[in-house]
Amino acid sequence: MDTRFDVLGIGNAIVDVLARAEDDFLAKQGMAKGSMALIDEPRAQSIYDAMGPATEASGGSAANTIVGVASFGGRAAFVGKVKDDELGRAFTHDIRAAGVAFDTPPASEGPSTARCYVLVTADGERTMNTYLGAAQDLHPNDVDEATITSASIVYLEGYLWDPPQAKEAFRKAAKIAHGAGRKVALTLSDAFCVGRYRDEFLNLMTTGAVDLIFANESELHSLYETSDFDTALAALRKDVKLGVVTRSEKGCVVISGGETVAVPAAPIDKLIDATGAGDLFAAGFLVGHARGADFGTSARLGGLAAAEVIQHLGARPLTSLKALAQEQGLLK
Amino acid sequence: MDTRFDVLGIGNAIVDVLARAEDDFLAKQGMAKGSMALIDEPRAQSIYDAMGPATEASGGSAANTIVGVASFGGRAAFVGKVKDDELGRAFTHDIRAAGVAFDTPPASEGPSTARCYVLVTADGERTMNTYLGAAQDLHPNDVDEATITSASIVYLEGYLWDPPQAKEAFRKAAKIAHGAGRKVALTLSDAFCVGRYRDEFLNLMTTGAVDLIFANESELHSLYETSDFDTALAALRKDVKLGVVTRSEKGCVVISGGETVAVPAAPIDKLIDATGAGDLFAAGFLVGHARGADFGTSARLGGLAAAEVIQHLGARPLTSLKALAQEQGLLK
Repeated sequence: MDTRFDVLGIGNAIVDVLARAEDDFLAKQGMAKGSMALIDEPRAQSIYDAMGPATEASGGSAANTIVGVASFGGRAAFVGKVKDDELGRAFTHDIRAAGVAFDTPPASEGPSTARCYVLVTADGERTMNTYLGAAQDLHPNDVDEATITSASIVYLEGYLWDPPQAKEAFRKAAKIAHGAGRKVALTLSDAFCVGRYRDEFLNLMTTGAVDLIFANESELHSLYETSDFDTALAALRKDVKLGVVTRSEKGCVVISGGETVAVPAAPIDKLIDATGAGDLFAAGFLVGHARGADFGTSARLGGLAAAEVIQHLGARPLTSLKALAQEQGLLK
Repeated sequence: MDTRFDVLGIGNAIVDVLARAEDDFLAKQGMAKGSMALIDEPRAQSIYDAMGPATEASGGSAANTIVGVASFGGRAAFVGKVKDDELGRAFTHDIRAAGVAFDTPPASEGPSTARCYVLVTADGERTMNTYLGAAQDLHPNDVDEATITSASIVYLEGYLWDPPQAKEAFRKAAKIAHGAGRKVALTLSDAFCVGRYRDEFLNLMTTGAVDLIFANESELHSLYETSDFDTALAALRKDVKLGVVTRSEKGCVVISGGETVAVPAAPIDKLIDATGAGDLFAAGFLVGHARGADFGTSARLGGLAAAEVIQHLGARPLTSLKALAQEQGLLK
């Protein structure tokens, strides 16, 4: 069956509220640098009151990935829940204007559109505080069979395990995708998220509900509760058909059965803001993989997109990734 | 009498919605490149629907200036009207987090917070479309005598002539300021704004309601309806006590009575986004002038701030202008 989309992403629909911060602001606020913390509305207000002047930009991990897929010229769709408020309308505008099909109906009542307070320190590291708001109300009914079956790869973020009903939407989407012979990919999202849902994630892998896992080193170590990279990689190789492990400036490793492909990181001039690095790596890899590129080429596409996004403030590409990839001879 | 503030600004409280655009987008939308057009709500919606992915950041001409004053370490206050909605709360957060006193009560009903759709083309030029919304409801009652008299300089934007009641707030503020022996400064805002209110602006100058005029070349030419710079400058010299004319990469000219001081532009690596150049020039000049610096030093502070803001996307400084000025030996 033909596909309408290369990649369909399901994730928390979030607007980022970005500001620069000093290390001692993080300390005073009790934030663990580099992490993502879930916060409630009073805490969101208290962080916002204390932080510096900010800018607002659409974010959300899988949403960033899907926008990256579209920037590569991939056919892309997204499923996620906003409220029908100003930030929700901004999220909707931005993802559609990036060329992504996005038709999940917004909530007309309940909590406001999700916000992530992103504090970027001088070293380029980002520390995130997420108020899930309306994203918590993503429901299995928001997952439409016809849309799921029309995508080569369904891509899900581990963060979806946080909102109570979203994991059911996730399971439903995976089942539909496999029923139609499509692939299901999952990012482990972050090491703390893995800590919260380790057994469930491992179960998704070993039962074959997920075909492709994206993880960075700390997520992988958290998943297998080991500090030894080779031990963790061997376990991943056994548990999933295709594993892609990103290692920041050390590049990435792709494993599949007995096969191993290591690709160095794309060079950068200066790290400005690490927000979106993993999301955009996944975008490049997924575009390559959906279109039948080999692992090495797919990983290079991922590295290219990650390098673009970490050299400016914000989690979505500011230039055409398709043009960048064509310059490098990675895409036609 | 002592002052609490170096500069108090009165202007339209606006949130910028910024996106990159191609020249042909401007042409298709019938936009005059480099200009500011006033738009109604349906037109705002139609532009937003057509434009690319955007980011939101607080803006407004005088508000940007006042944030610049604070970034230089100046004591700064702002008067302007937002609605009590998401964008209004973002505007309020951002200006207060920048260290500016901002206490104008938000509107609880009526139109939403003002938005400016800013399209930035590859050459760094910005084209603006402003929906004034709640900013139209700035009322003379929002101008508080105690606050006005506590500022060395009251700074007003010419754009305030657009909302029907704001000019009364403007006149009231100017009168109070002069009554307390303070200075009143006005920026002409843009050449089209000058076209709309030429006679009223000239009247403010020749009657002494305004002591200091900021204008760029095209505004000056529009004010005196001449294409000859020297003719226009001679007329300005006659009409106002202190005139500051910015000339982009040619720097600026300060005139006062028989005195003329020309200062070259600060060097830049690359023009990324011209949004805020005039606003930030005014910030530097006003800080210097309020603190008794000579015209040359004040103009250099202006040039420094303009150079910072045009080398990144967005209309407000991303770094401490005080630190920059100290590096250059322009501020203690």
